[in-house]
Amino acid sequence: VVRSGAVGEVVASRTDRYRAGDMVSGLLGWQEYAVIDGGVTVLPPGTDPLVAMSVLGATGMTAYFGMTDVGRVGEGDVVVVSGAAGATGSVAGQVARRKGAAKVVGLAGDATKCAWLVAELGFDAAINYKTEHVARRLHEECPDGIDLYFDNVGGDILDACLGQLALRGRIVLCGAISSYNEQGRPKGPSNVYNLIIQRGRMEGFLILDYFDRFPSAQAEMAGWAAAGHMKHKVHVVEGLEHTPDALNLLFTGGNTGKVIVQL
Amino acid sequence: VVRSGAVGEVVASRTDRYRAGDMVSGLLGWQEYAVIDGGVTVLPPGTDPLVAMSVLGATGMTAYFGMTDVGRVGEGDVVVVSGAAGATGSVAGQVARRKGAAKVVGLAGDATKCAWLVAELGFDAAINYKTEHVARRLHEECPDGIDLYFDNVGGDILDACLGQLALRGRIVLCGAISSYNEQGRPKGPSNVYNLIIQRGRMEGFLILDYFDRFPSAQAEMAGWAAAGHMKHKVHVVEGLEHTPDALNLLFTGGNTGKVIVQL
Repeated sequence: VVRSGAVGEVVASRTDRYRAGDMVSGLLGWQEYAVIDGGVTVLPPGTDPLVAMSVLGATGMTAYFGMTDVGRVGEGDVVVVSGAAGATGSVAGQVARRKGAAKVVGLAGDATKCAWLVAELGFDAAINYKTEHVARRLHEECPDGIDLYFDNVGGDILDACLGQLALRGRIVLCGAISSYNEQGRPKGPSNVYNLIIQRGRMEGFLILDYFDRFPSAQAEMAGWAAAGHMKHKVHVVEGLEHTPDALNLLFTGGNTGKVIVQL
Repeated sequence: VVRSGAVGEVVASRTDRYRAGDMVSGLLGWQEYAVIDGGVTVLPPGTDPLVAMSVLGATGMTAYFGMTDVGRVGEGDVVVVSGAAGATGSVAGQVARRKGAAKVVGLAGDATKCAWLVAELGFDAAINYKTEHVARRLHEECPDGIDLYFDNVGGDILDACLGQLALRGRIVLCGAISSYNEQGRPKGPSNVYNLIIQRGRMEGFLILDYFDRFPSAQAEMAGWAAAGHMKHKVHVVEGLEHTPDALNLLFTGGNTGKVIVQL
């Protein structure tokens, strides 16, 4: 069974911790029925499963802890997010705004996504990395440099952000999807030595390390969501048999927002 | 005048802060006489000018703050230092040992330097990067990964250390001499995404930011030096007219220890 986060309904239980009818969230995998022995969270009655899967799920938590704990986002920061129309990036930009960022710039791969970032999610600017000159546009949007870059893609965009880093800038390495399907060794960022001149920090993380801290983060995020500050979009694909196609959307960029397979 | 650290004798003074005969240390430049208006430290009477220039000078301070403040070296760490026979690297390895590192491995470019690191400076192992397969040797010497890599060179050695990083490993970017004379853009490290898997941190720094904290560091370092724990070697070149040749030693690797031009 391929591992993945999921929300499901308990159909039968031999433990007091879960009751038939409970909605639970956890690593249930690509399957219609799962036999588990704990490791899932019972959702409050009435939680929208699509919200549970997106803003309060692993991708939302990734955005939250990457921005706050790793990136130390703070008042006045100029923040750039790549993969900004994706499940993690779209939340990351909104977390930055909630935490007092002065400017939030998103990178996405088509005009519709870019328009959505600015019009709906409150990003200050969006850059279409497929049609615009990324380094030049970053220089225009962040003339005094990037304080915090939340990297979901790696590759040339990471390199461009390294080149535009502000003094004591931080780069949060969350994913490198641009390199996952590359043949041979990926090209490294040649601007990496700019970290010396700018006294910059680049740090990677995995959300697995933050499971214990999910509840307090989910409470804060749920509050923002209830106040209308945590917009999200889900891209629902129907049927387990279409899961490989759904996964592939992440590589083609065919999705806007969290990709969810509904069974 | 080319900027550089130097130690000199005050020959005349119009201020009470310095008196003729004082030995002072600071950015005096490539020249025989300098007219200054402060910005230098008066050395205690009797300080060996060569120690003032090396262990207690900018390169020694770079080693100290890079290891402690940026790298957060601690008990039990497996530490790797490149440019280990150089002015900064040789001190960095010894600072790591003083701070409780479990193992200190140095990289240098010839057998004599490697022997010196182990026999004289107390490194546990040395790797000759010109004759040995660096990634394989790092894997042998650090089978459980590198907790802290102090990088003086960048390039392929940085890439190899990224590939062998331990969980929560740190990389201190101090210099990238391998790239300074490169034509075009330097090649970036393709293992940079290993920072995600290992939750690693890579951070650059400049010693200029630490001037205010030199006195306490110099006191600690002077104590280690007095106890015989801070060995150093200086490579003295005679005559201001040979300064360009002396600088070039840093690029050819012809030096062992701090290069000092004596006037």
